[in-house]
Amino acid sequence: MDIIQNLNWRYATKRMNGSKIPQSALETIKESIRLSPSSVGLQPYKILIVESEELKKKISPPAFNQPQITESSHVLVFTVWKSLTDLQASEYLAYVQSERGVSLESLSTLENYLNNIKKMSEDDFYNWSSKQAYIALSSAILASAELKIDSTPMEGFSKEDLDKALGLSEKNLKSVVLLALGYRDEKNDWLLKMKKVRRKEADLFTQL
Amino acid sequence: MDIIQNLNWRYATKRMNGSKIPQSALETIKESIRLSPSSVGLQPYKILIVESEELKKKISPPAFNQPQITESSHVLVFTVWKSLTDLQASEYLAYVQSERGVSLESLSTLENYLNNIKKMSEDDFYNWSSKQAYIALSSAILASAELKIDSTPMEGFSKEDLDKALGLSEKNLKSVVLLALGYRDEKNDWLLKMKKVRRKEADLFTQL
Repeated sequence: MDIIQNLNWRYATKRMNGSKIPQSALETIKESIRLSPSSVGLQPYKILIVESEELKKKISPPAFNQPQITESSHVLVFTVWKSLTDLQASEYLAYVQSERGVSLESLSTLENYLNNIKKMSEDDFYNWSSKQAYIALSSAILASAELKIDSTPMEGFSKEDLDKALGLSEKNLKSVVLLALGYRDEKNDWLLKMKKVRRKEADLFTQL
Repeated sequence: MDIIQNLNWRYATKRMNGSKIPQSALETIKESIRLSPSSVGLQPYKILIVESEELKKKISPPAFNQPQITESSHVLVFTVWKSLTDLQASEYLAYVQSERGVSLESLSTLENYLNNIKKMSEDDFYNWSSKQAYIALSSAILASAELKIDSTPMEGFSKEDLDKALGLSEKNLKSVVLLALGYRDEKNDWLLKMKKVRRKEADLFTQL
């Protein structure tokens, strides 16, 4: 199984060597995100791609100066919408309608779901949309591994400071999680030599 | 790219045909969950595997009688811990220590992270651990697709009722999301013939 091999190959790379990943690989990783499932297919997120050294330096302090930021090829900043607006909901309904060539009436169940999502508090919407973003994050990690590109998911950053550094609030976005893409620094990454630690099967699963 | 092909092949199967998946496939899907990354490697979740018809019938009403529950081969119930207890934190530290053959002193950074996680409110812990579970959910969806097994992630259920039906609170667990595994009912699944709707690249990504 490729996916099992890829999951064994990957690890949370702590040091990267600064080499750039090919543009074609970046496009594949983006496509794995784009094709990821999400609740009611809404994809309530936006992924910002940070490549310039200047911008990496700007987001480095909010990420507590972890070396992967500046040693990576690209940093993907997963952000979510602040809320589902009336406009976004109706645009999405119209998009599904046109893509599938169906009537608006046939989408009443979807419309009801969207109405409920619109009513969520800002916190509830953040928590719910973040989970959708994590599905896409996981796809990107696995797509990267398939390409033998290292990726480091990073929760350790100040959301407030990163949102400010990238002006996210003005764009109605909030940061969720980062994914540094690049190549492992085999000489200097202490974690590379360490055994991957995972719970035993009996500790994780219960057959009912 | 296999992962892109697999993401295109899969869809949120609405009707399944009741056929059982091979045990070897279930084991691979479980292994994809087990090997999934999580924040500080904690894997703060437990996956319950529902196979018996009796138990599927029991969880069907909490899942609003969606047909995938009873038409599936297995339903994976992703649950998370209620909190990180002192015992779980120290057991995890001891496990990492023994797996890697390192000193407890060398794990002080991990210990600090765990101390912060212990201090989370129950809601914050639920939201954080749920995101870790969604990473594993996404691996399971992709592993299933690689095996040409259909899977339907399901958020549409009453968490309160499902937790009651499975006695989760007594086990210090809370339900997060379901994944029905099985085979598509090609004749009766209306969604199979529909075009997969995904946002366009320009709508999802911003190169900074």
